[in-house]
Amino acid sequence: MRTVSERTIQMRINKNEAADMLLEMDNILILAHENPDGDAVGSACALCKGLRSIGKRAYISLEPISKTDAFMTEKLVRPAEFIPEHIVAVDTADIKILGVEGSGLDKSCNVELCIDHHMSNVFFARNTYLDESASAAAEAVYDIMKTMNIPFTKDIAECLYVGIATDTGCFRYSNTTSKTFRTAAELADMGVDIGKINKIQFETKTKEYAAIEKMAIASMQTHFDGKCAMITVTHEMFEDSGAADCETKPLSSIPRQIEGVYAGITIKEKKKGLFNISVRTNEPVNASEIAGYLGGGGHRMAAGCTFEGTRQDAEKAVLEAVRTVFEKAGLL
Amino acid sequence: MRTVSERTIQMRINKNEAADMLLEMDNILILAHENPDGDAVGSACALCKGLRSIGKRAYISLEPISKTDAFMTEKLVRPAEFIPEHIVAVDTADIKILGVEGSGLDKSCNVELCIDHHMSNVFFARNTYLDESASAAAEAVYDIMKTMNIPFTKDIAECLYVGIATDTGCFRYSNTTSKTFRTAAELADMGVDIGKINKIQFETKTKEYAAIEKMAIASMQTHFDGKCAMITVTHEMFEDSGAADCETKPLSSIPRQIEGVYAGITIKEKKKGLFNISVRTNEPVNASEIAGYLGGGGHRMAAGCTFEGTRQDAEKAVLEAVRTVFEKAGLL
Repeated sequence: MRTVSERTIQMRINKNEAADMLLEMDNILILAHENPDGDAVGSACALCKGLRSIGKRAYISLEPISKTDAFMTEKLVRPAEFIPEHIVAVDTADIKILGVEGSGLDKSCNVELCIDHHMSNVFFARNTYLDESASAAAEAVYDIMKTMNIPFTKDIAECLYVGIATDTGCFRYSNTTSKTFRTAAELADMGVDIGKINKIQFETKTKEYAAIEKMAIASMQTHFDGKCAMITVTHEMFEDSGAADCETKPLSSIPRQIEGVYAGITIKEKKKGLFNISVRTNEPVNASEIAGYLGGGGHRMAAGCTFEGTRQDAEKAVLEAVRTVFEKAGLL
Repeated sequence: MRTVSERTIQMRINKNEAADMLLEMDNILILAHENPDGDAVGSACALCKGLRSIGKRAYISLEPISKTDAFMTEKLVRPAEFIPEHIVAVDTADIKILGVEGSGLDKSCNVELCIDHHMSNVFFARNTYLDESASAAAEAVYDIMKTMNIPFTKDIAECLYVGIATDTGCFRYSNTTSKTFRTAAELADMGVDIGKINKIQFETKTKEYAAIEKMAIASMQTHFDGKCAMITVTHEMFEDSGAADCETKPLSSIPRQIEGVYAGITIKEKKKGLFNISVRTNEPVNASEIAGYLGGGGHRMAAGCTFEGTRQDAEKAVLEAVRTVFEKAGLL
């Protein structure tokens, strides 16, 4: 295997070229981004199952796998003795976030092909098939697999469905297009039990999550005449509920959902005295501007930052940033 | 207009016949079920706009319209002086639940055509186009409008999309089929802003709802080793939050979402001493059996009943019913 220092070409390729590359490979290890979400796991598993169905040896290496995604990975996880000839990454925009934990590799490994949908993809792989119009990496993987004439089983279709459904918030977010719906229709026709999978992915809360959500909602405060809503999850709440940090992502969407809220703030104290702050906004408020005042950043409607200190100081600092941005936006 | 006493034929018709009927009508009033939801409003408004676009005079009469659905009804609501020649009902399974408030009619009015998707439709109208495979009445209305060659504008497509999205819980529920996704794809291609409408319908909570949800979640108790979760919303909570009963429907889904819960109970005290109890279950527990012990009924996974007395008695009575059904199911 070539190492990263020998890399010369970072090519953007089309789906036929990506399909041809995969058809020529064998002994393939599939990686995705760190802390893999449903799209990372679904895309990797679908590709792995598809490659195996046409006679190739393929494994995945993804860690950690959430409870809701574990049903897809059975028999796919790389055994320690497997030495890959080729490395493929899915749903990964940058080498910095490539998940190599448990793979026996480090981030300087030679990713020959990356299949992705992030506009921010930096073309770190030797070859990248990037479809920025795709709602999920799974949509891009599906297109390549169709080009490869891989026969779609219910099993493969389920993985692709999980990818698409999770990355679109079950077809809620604005990345949902008519193509997304058409792909979902095709996957449903392949036998995916839509209701069952949605129930697992979207209608089930662990007891630990339900417990911390209850505390988080109870902590909710509103400020600036209801224009800002804030929830704070303390270190003690994590300990009392037993919830893992990775399962508390949905909390971030709660404060912004309230009518009249322009800035929804979620403060999480993962370690004592260390706060992760997520900022979600509605127009005309720019979330990255609020996070920026605290040394963070992100997108216009979703951004984040960290804060060291006390809970009171964290809340005060965020509210100061919110006030400044609200004033500039003419909301106060 | 003939009255109900003159009715002789209760016909089930196909979509071509339904289309022909509509093409022959003029001066049409469109009704739907009482307390109209997104599908009732979306279906009625889409049909009304479509009929107008081919030169017909048509109005709707639906009350009350929720804040989230009001954007569809502009200029469509029947003025008092409008005397309909023909009455069409959408999304209505039974004359008993036909919404006539504000229509100037009573329930004995002559509904010439009903367009519906409920398996429980009793064929109360003179002619019924029923598509039980449709996820929403809006899917059935769309099929008829296509047959009528009505030109689909963005405006009409938005109404149909609201119907389909709301009746499937934004494509979450098991009534979502490949046809549902294909219809959504076609509507998206007609210019529906999927992200914007979903945000209004699914990502926005009124302040009053957010307040009562907070109290409801704080009230959550679990019983039988976490197999039953129960929330109770008292009359005082309604008063303190200012929430209307009709906007508290989403509370019913909260207790069942918790991992390990077989019966999720939501008790709502609308009037002092009068409790509406909703029961949501996971297999193998039959919700209608639990509700049945308290004189109610419903479906296998969703049922309901009422109770008069104190909060303590209501909770105790439900828990007794749950215990009996759990024991029969071998869960205790």
